Amino acid sequence: MLVQSQIQLQTSGRGTHDITAEVNEHVRRSQVTEGLCTVFVQHTSASLVICENADPDVRTDLEAWLSRAVPDGDPLFVHTSEGSDDMPAHVRSTLTSTSIGIPITSGGLALGTWQGLYLYEHRHLGHSRRIRLTILG
Amino acid sequence: MLVQSQIQLQTSGRGTHDITAEVNEHVRRSQVTEGLCTVFVQHTSASLVICENADPDVRTDLEAWLSRAVPDGDPLFVHTSEGSDDMPAHVRSTLTSTSIGIPITSGGLALGTWQGLYLYEHRHLGHSRRIRLTILG
Amino acid sequence: MLVQSQIQLQTSGRGTHDITAEVNEHVRRSQVTEGLCTVFVQHTSASLVICENADPDVRTDLEAWLSRAVPDGDPLFVHTSEGSDDMPAHVRSTLTSTSIGIPITSGGLALGTWQGLYLYEHRHLGHSRRIRLTILG
Repeated sequence: MLVQSQIQLQTSGRGTHDITAEVNEHVRRSQVTEGLCTVFVQHTSASLVICENADPDVRTDLEAWLSRAVPDGDPLFVHTSEGSDDMPAHVRSTLTSTSIGIPITSGGLALGTWQGLYLYEHRHLGHSRRIRLTILG
Repeated sequence: MLVQSQIQLQTSGRGTHDITAEVNEHVRRSQVTEGLCTVFVQHTSASLVICENADPDVRTDLEAWLSRAVPDGDPLFVHTSEGSDDMPAHVRSTLTSTSIGIPITSGGLALGTWQGLYLYEHRHLGHSRRIRLTILG
Repeated sequence: MLVQSQIQLQTSGRGTHDITAEVNEHVRRSQVTEGLCTVFVQHTSASLVICENADPDVRTDLEAWLSRAVPDGDPLFVHTSEGSDDMPAHVRSTLTSTSIGIPITSGGLALGTWQGLYLYEHRHLGHSRRIRLTILG
């Protein structure tokens, strides 16, 4: 059994957007009870992370680490025409994930207790982002 | 054909734990000869890496690089209540992989000659870690 | 439906090699119109990235960032017998991807407008690299 669907998400600028509930809703609608849900983001300046979902400070700290490791406006970069946060957004996307495969058990994502699934917007301005789900079971 | 199974692993603290043989054993038991095995770790302070399996120095050096790039006790972090190695563990997990899809051929993982599959424990203390396998064929 | 195939690629040294068209050709030949294509590289010093495909400067800048973050000849590393770029190649492979699952729609990879799929050779010398495709639909 194979079901594909799509999530369109308007981000509000740099940071993580919890998509766990919405992806779970798509899994439920697919009626696949055991299988695999592959989440894929169709962009190169936004990405996916699975991260601790209890203390929001974890995502704040992840952002702080990424901002320091891949600084906006780094003179290293020559691709600057789309803004000082564009090339850093591409590097951040490469360091995180464009695609994540998550098991489905009992009709939902088999995430661990403290795992949340997030779209990570790496640009400072909000963007409309497309995520594609491929559900196999 | 779809087979799901689970591996429970007691780690002995920070470092890599070779799970190649155990995952291969689950693949063999599934009787799927051609397909895809998706390995998923249900934690945010342990992760998965595929790494060179010949010289253990490679994993020592990977650990040295990660320890320098994401130092324990970094004053950048505000999420410190669970220990000075907790937030670094979340960043390290994000930089490596929570989920890896590996082809199955001839009833086993189609890894390259020098590829091993490792659970990476990022906390200094040992933990019980759960890994879920989804085998499609 | 399950189709597996293989791509053998001769790289010309460090840098990205666009494999989008070749993977798409394998998808077309599989006759799977809706599904999932999992791309897997059987090496630990070459990897996969999905990256912006319009301005080549983006990949130049990604290379500049990786070269600075994981410098060749770093005295941190003890695994040096295979050359000063070998251990950095393993770290770079870990920071990028060994496996990527991409949805298939209408008989081709459902990549975003600006997404290209690249094999990333991390060694300075060219190598023969094997990529395995698992197409499920």
